[in-house]
Amino acid sequence: MKVGFVGLGRMGSAMATNLLKAGHELAVWNRTPGKADALVDAGARRAICPADAADGDVIMTMLADDAAVEAAVYGQDGILGGPALHVSHSTISVALADRLAADHTGEGGFVSAPVFGRPVAAEAGKLFVVAAGAAEHVDSCEPLFMAIGQRVFRVGTTPSAANLVKLSGNFMIMSAVEAMAEAMTLAEKGGVDRATLLEVLTGTLFGAPVYQTYGDILVEDRFRPAGFAAPLGLKDMNLVDAAATASRVAMPVLGVIRDHLRAAIAQEGEDIDWASVAMAVRRAAGMS
Amino acid sequence: MKVGFVGLGRMGSAMATNLLKAGHELAVWNRTPGKADALVDAGARRAICPADAADGDVIMTMLADDAAVEAAVYGQDGILGGPALHVSHSTISVALADRLAADHTGEGGFVSAPVFGRPVAAEAGKLFVVAAGAAEHVDSCEPLFMAIGQRVFRVGTTPSAANLVKLSGNFMIMSAVEAMAEAMTLAEKGGVDRATLLEVLTGTLFGAPVYQTYGDILVEDRFRPAGFAAPLGLKDMNLVDAAATASRVAMPVLGVIRDHLRAAIAQEGEDIDWASVAMAVRRAAGMS
Amino acid sequence: MKVGFVGLGRMGSAMATNLLKAGHELAVWNRTPGKADALVDAGARRAICPADAADGDVIMTMLADDAAVEAAVYGQDGILGGPALHVSHSTISVALADRLAADHTGEGGFVSAPVFGRPVAAEAGKLFVVAAGAAEHVDSCEPLFMAIGQRVFRVGTTPSAANLVKLSGNFMIMSAVEAMAEAMTLAEKGGVDRATLLEVLTGTLFGAPVYQTYGDILVEDRFRPAGFAAPLGLKDMNLVDAAATASRVAMPVLGVIRDHLRAAIAQEGEDIDWASVAMAVRRAAGMS
Amino acid sequence: MKVGFVGLGRMGSAMATNLLKAGHELAVWNRTPGKADALVDAGARRAICPADAADGDVIMTMLADDAAVEAAVYGQDGILGGPALHVSHSTISVALADRLAADHTGEGGFVSAPVFGRPVAAEAGKLFVVAAGAAEHVDSCEPLFMAIGQRVFRVGTTPSAANLVKLSGNFMIMSAVEAMAEAMTLAEKGGVDRATLLEVLTGTLFGAPVYQTYGDILVEDRFRPAGFAAPLGLKDMNLVDAAATASRVAMPVLGVIRDHLRAAIAQEGEDIDWASVAMAVRRAAGMS
Repeated sequence: MKVGFVGLGRMGSAMATNLLKAGHELAVWNRTPGKADALVDAGARRAICPADAADGDVIMTMLADDAAVEAAVYGQDGILGGPALHVSHSTISVALADRLAADHTGEGGFVSAPVFGRPVAAEAGKLFVVAAGAAEHVDSCEPLFMAIGQRVFRVGTTPSAANLVKLSGNFMIMSAVEAMAEAMTLAEKGGVDRATLLEVLTGTLFGAPVYQTYGDILVEDRFRPAGFAAPLGLKDMNLVDAAATASRVAMPVLGVIRDHLRAAIAQEGEDIDWASVAMAVRRAAGMS
Repeated sequence: MKVGFVGLGRMGSAMATNLLKAGHELAVWNRTPGKADALVDAGARRAICPADAADGDVIMTMLADDAAVEAAVYGQDGILGGPALHVSHSTISVALADRLAADHTGEGGFVSAPVFGRPVAAEAGKLFVVAAGAAEHVDSCEPLFMAIGQRVFRVGTTPSAANLVKLSGNFMIMSAVEAMAEAMTLAEKGGVDRATLLEVLTGTLFGAPVYQTYGDILVEDRFRPAGFAAPLGLKDMNLVDAAATASRVAMPVLGVIRDHLRAAIAQEGEDIDWASVAMAVRRAAGMS
Repeated sequence: MKVGFVGLGRMGSAMATNLLKAGHELAVWNRTPGKADALVDAGARRAICPADAADGDVIMTMLADDAAVEAAVYGQDGILGGPALHVSHSTISVALADRLAADHTGEGGFVSAPVFGRPVAAEAGKLFVVAAGAAEHVDSCEPLFMAIGQRVFRVGTTPSAANLVKLSGNFMIMSAVEAMAEAMTLAEKGGVDRATLLEVLTGTLFGAPVYQTYGDILVEDRFRPAGFAAPLGLKDMNLVDAAATASRVAMPVLGVIRDHLRAAIAQEGEDIDWASVAMAVRRAAGMS
Repeated sequence: MKVGFVGLGRMGSAMATNLLKAGHELAVWNRTPGKADALVDAGARRAICPADAADGDVIMTMLADDAAVEAAVYGQDGILGGPALHVSHSTISVALADRLAADHTGEGGFVSAPVFGRPVAAEAGKLFVVAAGAAEHVDSCEPLFMAIGQRVFRVGTTPSAANLVKLSGNFMIMSAVEAMAEAMTLAEKGGVDRATLLEVLTGTLFGAPVYQTYGDILVEDRFRPAGFAAPLGLKDMNLVDAAATASRVAMPVLGVIRDHLRAAIAQEGEDIDWASVAMAVRRAAGMS
């Protein structure tokens, strides 16, 4: 297929590379052009603007936040000007996803398809893709999704549903980290070391990647360099909060997480990993 | 080995039965004597009091709460009067475990070994045993633990450490349920049904028994009959809270859980399952 | 003085009327022109646009939210086009106040002066004015403030400081209501009626208007018609939350309030008073 | 009247002194006898045990906690052995007050009458007395209450109602402190000093002793020596929590307070004032 890709950060570059490897005809664009060089060397065409990248079958975007997506879509020479089906992989607000769905009125259409996975998973083509949109649109993207991911979850025909699921997933990750941090702090002050508690948890009811991955980070106090920086985590939790406000849902655990992200950033600095909510928990218990 | 067993509720009976099957010489005692009948029919000796049951190598207790354990140990003809090593499987407070450890000054000794698993797991001999106590004492119990469980975790030489781990585990279960409930409520009000969200969660980072088991309960609103009644869950969370007060640890997610257990009981009744924190979350969002 | 007034809702109309009564030369503008009729009948000039109203010494704005202020200031024929000193009385975000301060670079200048008080206080000229801005600017507004209020608090030279104080005050009001609601619910379930508890509180350490006013509302379940609607209260609490995110401050009581505002709106409807956080508290205790 | 007084700490001594000054015939008892010396010098009789002190019209107790009251009442030579009406001024649990009411079955009767006020107010005879019990019993105590306090609130005929009101009041104090701490921290990080915010608050809707007294403490960081030590405050909040558990009431602000008391004690030490919840709030914002 003829595919455009906008947003060549670490995640986006890895995804675009896998599309190229899968044999698709790729056009790439990034606000900072240098980030496109490697892909161009590998055979991609350098698009001159988002609209140019969108002059094919599908245009994929993988950008940092709502503002970046708005700029790429609604800005001058933006994606809305191209005929391609727009597949948005970014973690953006439910509100913006709804607005994008409403504004892609042309033939191209709009699919929201945020992904779960860290850069390493993106490089290995092992992302999880959560997709929502018109069935025929999502169908047509399946080969592309299989090039970047290991599994596709279809969660309905309203694109923003995929964003809601993605945001809920990030909230669930933070919830698991926060709960582990509270339990580990209680255990440690009571004489049980964190590794021992983690071994029992993952060996019984909690044998899932979220506990194994973040459990190790907590046991080893491995918060720098940030795999996912706390301010970005806070941004995502603010998007969950905005959805909760719009839907009138009380989410007290979300409130705890947002407070601890603010505390961790205030206490440790802006460059700390989002798992550092655990540091806020420890400091509140008088530990350092 | 010559083993006594005190506390023949559904969990205790299953555990005792497995000890009998494994070939141990068993004496049983229960406050309500009728509950011992089946085991006596199967070959166990009916002890006339806890002290009588404790007249062997090991005396195991599996009782409802601190008060029941105190009665069996410190009461008239209590366990302290027997020579056996006392293995406490009950979910009791850290403070009582410390007191028991201090008071078992005789040759018998004291091991704390609470278990994870529902009655079905107990019947199948598939419990997880979390044990703490003097190494030689825990060593001598290994064959008994393997008769009732699938795996033993040793968490130190201070018996109450095992209780702290057990209570932390129950807190972690409730944390996962609370977080899922918040996410499912947000998703559902936003148009994504609960089963879809659960499929994505367990298919990605959250593929652990705690999410599968309780996720199904939440998707199906299966809160009666209670597998584990909310008032008992609240009792356990109060034990975590007592440990947190003693150790000066702030646990805000624990606060959320305790509030939602109180709310669920107030709104639904005393016979509801502890997973009904999810009902409190839904009601707070205006859903029923 | 020659004063313009933009925003003639119930609060704004009352404030403008008091300026007129104090002898100032008044020009008024409102998006819905009919709301200016009474003031024009009373002697005010009908401005044709915000810029026209700002063609004097001082232009005051009293609008519903950030968007309304942005429209009046930055929109076509907006206030930035006039020479007057802009005095913003609206409850707006700290971020917008900072932006307005930065953009009023002309001779006019910018003072932020949000007010405390309900419409009845506005009509009586008994508002509390919290003002921040350049000293000479605030000095020049003193006679105007004394026409609309009973007391002026000067909180610094950075205009947004006044907004931060105003938002903090609204947070404090909601905190007092939430705490009273929790205490009253506990007391009532324990057999002490709400009025009795309130009498003890206000008769001892809590003899302040916030407890008297809202205490009566809670005792009498007087939530409709709304004196201040819950969605507006939630909007204000979201502004506090945005300031807390920007400053990296954990505010767990704010989280409780926001959750209970969402719950009250979800359970009772959008037209309920913001004091209905108390209804959310009662429902969570199984009361109706 | 012939009055006995048990519990001669700083509060109790001041109250007993005022009873003596008012002309009552006083017998005093304290576990540490030396604390009775000053009162004996002033004309009181030294009782040989609580029962001896209770050999009159009224026996008043002012003790530290549930355990101390239980010892004085149910212990050897305890108050239950005397004929006097027992008036309990201590801050004890609702559950113990209910138990005391049930056990005072003799002619004496039982009134619960906890007080609001610091030692200075006790010395000045300016306490607030919250009384509950049979009307004729409370009637008969009125002259005694007026000797120690400035005002009596009667809150019903069930004695424990007075304890519930007292505990609710302490919860309300802590709620006001916590809310002020959050608002002051937000304001200060935003450039508004604490004293300025406090001036606006107490000058508008929050002109009550609770805000003035504790506001000054927070502005001046005056947490040592403790007026009321944080561990005692936590003990009281745990009594509120126990009542909330028994009544199935969710109290999320109580949860915040208890977590911050634990945090303050863990971070600052056991000798800190209960207003130091504000220090926990500040530390969580990265301030010291």
